[in-house]
Amino acid sequence: MPGPGEFELIREYFSSRFQTEGQPNSGAQGYANQSVVLGIGDDCALLNPPTGKILATSVDTLVADVHFPASADPFRIGSRALRVNLSDLAAMNAEPLWFTLALTLPESSPDWLEPFARGLAATAHAYGITLIGGDTTKGPLSITIQVTGACDAPLRRDGASAGDRIFVSNTLGAGAAALPIVLGEIDGSLAQQQQQQQQSEAAYYFPEPQFAVARAIGEYASAALDISDGLLGDLGHICEASGLGAELDLERLPIAPLAQSVKGERALETALTGGDDYQLCFTIPEQHLSALGALQLPITAIGRMTAESGVRCRLHGVGWQPSGTSFQHF
Amino acid sequence: MPGPGEFELIREYFSSRFQTEGQPNSGAQGYANQSVVLGIGDDCALLNPPTGKILATSVDTLVADVHFPASADPFRIGSRALRVNLSDLAAMNAEPLWFTLALTLPESSPDWLEPFARGLAATAHAYGITLIGGDTTKGPLSITIQVTGACDAPLRRDGASAGDRIFVSNTLGAGAAALPIVLGEIDGSLAQQQQQQQQSEAAYYFPEPQFAVARAIGEYASAALDISDGLLGDLGHICEASGLGAELDLERLPIAPLAQSVKGERALETALTGGDDYQLCFTIPEQHLSALGALQLPITAIGRMTAESGVRCRLHGVGWQPSGTSFQHF
Repeated sequence: MPGPGEFELIREYFSSRFQTEGQPNSGAQGYANQSVVLGIGDDCALLNPPTGKILATSVDTLVADVHFPASADPFRIGSRALRVNLSDLAAMNAEPLWFTLALTLPESSPDWLEPFARGLAATAHAYGITLIGGDTTKGPLSITIQVTGACDAPLRRDGASAGDRIFVSNTLGAGAAALPIVLGEIDGSLAQQQQQQQQSEAAYYFPEPQFAVARAIGEYASAALDISDGLLGDLGHICEASGLGAELDLERLPIAPLAQSVKGERALETALTGGDDYQLCFTIPEQHLSALGALQLPITAIGRMTAESGVRCRLHGVGWQPSGTSFQHF
Repeated sequence: MPGPGEFELIREYFSSRFQTEGQPNSGAQGYANQSVVLGIGDDCALLNPPTGKILATSVDTLVADVHFPASADPFRIGSRALRVNLSDLAAMNAEPLWFTLALTLPESSPDWLEPFARGLAATAHAYGITLIGGDTTKGPLSITIQVTGACDAPLRRDGASAGDRIFVSNTLGAGAAALPIVLGEIDGSLAQQQQQQQQSEAAYYFPEPQFAVARAIGEYASAALDISDGLLGDLGHICEASGLGAELDLERLPIAPLAQSVKGERALETALTGGDDYQLCFTIPEQHLSALGALQLPITAIGRMTAESGVRCRLHGVGWQPSGTSFQHF
């Protein structure tokens, strides 16, 4: 039996679902968002952006068997695809508004589309973002999502000064520790491994965009980004954009329990260079440290920005050189 | 020799090129567009949308060997990828502002990237649109572009009334006639065929977004879209969105010379059901016909909207049924 045609597919799995459910409140045409004038179904979506705000927009592609196993649960793929994009909005301290979905599929299969759309809708609902349009094409499985949000004072990479303290949110290394387990390269048949399996799938498919931390640090931070390619590489981007360097005290690094249980002796290196954590790395000028401390946020100071360029690592005061580097696609 | 890494790739072929050339004038950071606060290089691009305008946004994916031959000249692929997206802005009567590029590549090859970026930049320059960000990933060759524009009074699909006259811009059928030649399914070794080859490559890789026609009809048209999937199917979308039907007088159809020379007796059907033309189809209320006629636009009246649903075709007054239907991906 052939799958549904392109237009029926869009209507069945996306237009109707996203207009009637998965949204916190209703705007024009049943859409969540008052800024959406016209959603799915015309040549373009039409939008009335919030007055006086700056728009922030980011696009990410997830390719099957590069960014997720092609055989993975489509619900989880839908969740991860939107969450990794939302993380970029959080990193700018932007509130989610709307997103588009460009979906390339080898075939139009309801068995895949239904749970994928459900995973996407559940995530959109949780973060208050509205699907406004997209494109479906036939080809190797690939998902491109572009998110747009609004902000008053965006957290850019280029605002750090020498002496600013460097922080990260929550813990690091879970994403990279999860990857070989999610890919099935490590067997999950024993009891301890089953627990690792569950933790890995949660870390990999349901990363939490750090909107709450971003809002809280918004008035204090001088620079910020999300750690998608590994702390060392991403902190390097803040250094480069701000024309500075950094020194890290590695004994302070908040290592994820999953990284410790899976990676053992290499947990520190995993936390330092592994990707896929989607935690925030940000810099705070000295004078804001006490005000920030009073907020009791799940954040850890791990070093400081320096006038000297390059990122230098110390472990208990001794210079330390990682064997790996951050993830690059090519 | 390995190709450049991901970050070097972005810098080399996109950030630097689009900041220093291919743009009609300079704004923030050397970008064309005053609305661009921050372009390529942070978690998000930052945008200051024009006050009092509605934003129009559209996304399209081009998959290698589905939408273009993988071996095609990368300059031409870059041209087509942006032009088909710009056509969606033109169809809403929106002026181009900015776009993103999500590029999936099997390998990071300067021989491919350099001409691709050049084709993209030349097109961006010609239409005054600014590259603000994107994503590069490793995988099967695929190009997803999202364009955003601004408009005062968008041309939607759902505004037609029964009795409105149906028009198309320029000629139809060239895109569909070009396809087998572009794909190399028809040999171009003879003199007549060489001419067809040149015309086909121009039609396929350099379609002209109809901004000038859209601007001219903006105050008169009740509905509009661009013909990407074939006139019959796309007119069906206006009918469905407006809750109406249509009747077409096929002898009025402006058939592209290329469709006539390549398709012969099937030229009419090609013009009616073939895709990839990116001409406008729009509806004009009776009372605006004389004002529109005075503008001497390259447009042709081909029928009228009806209260009765469905699209009915007549050829010299006799009912006519095409054997094919519009293109669908699945």
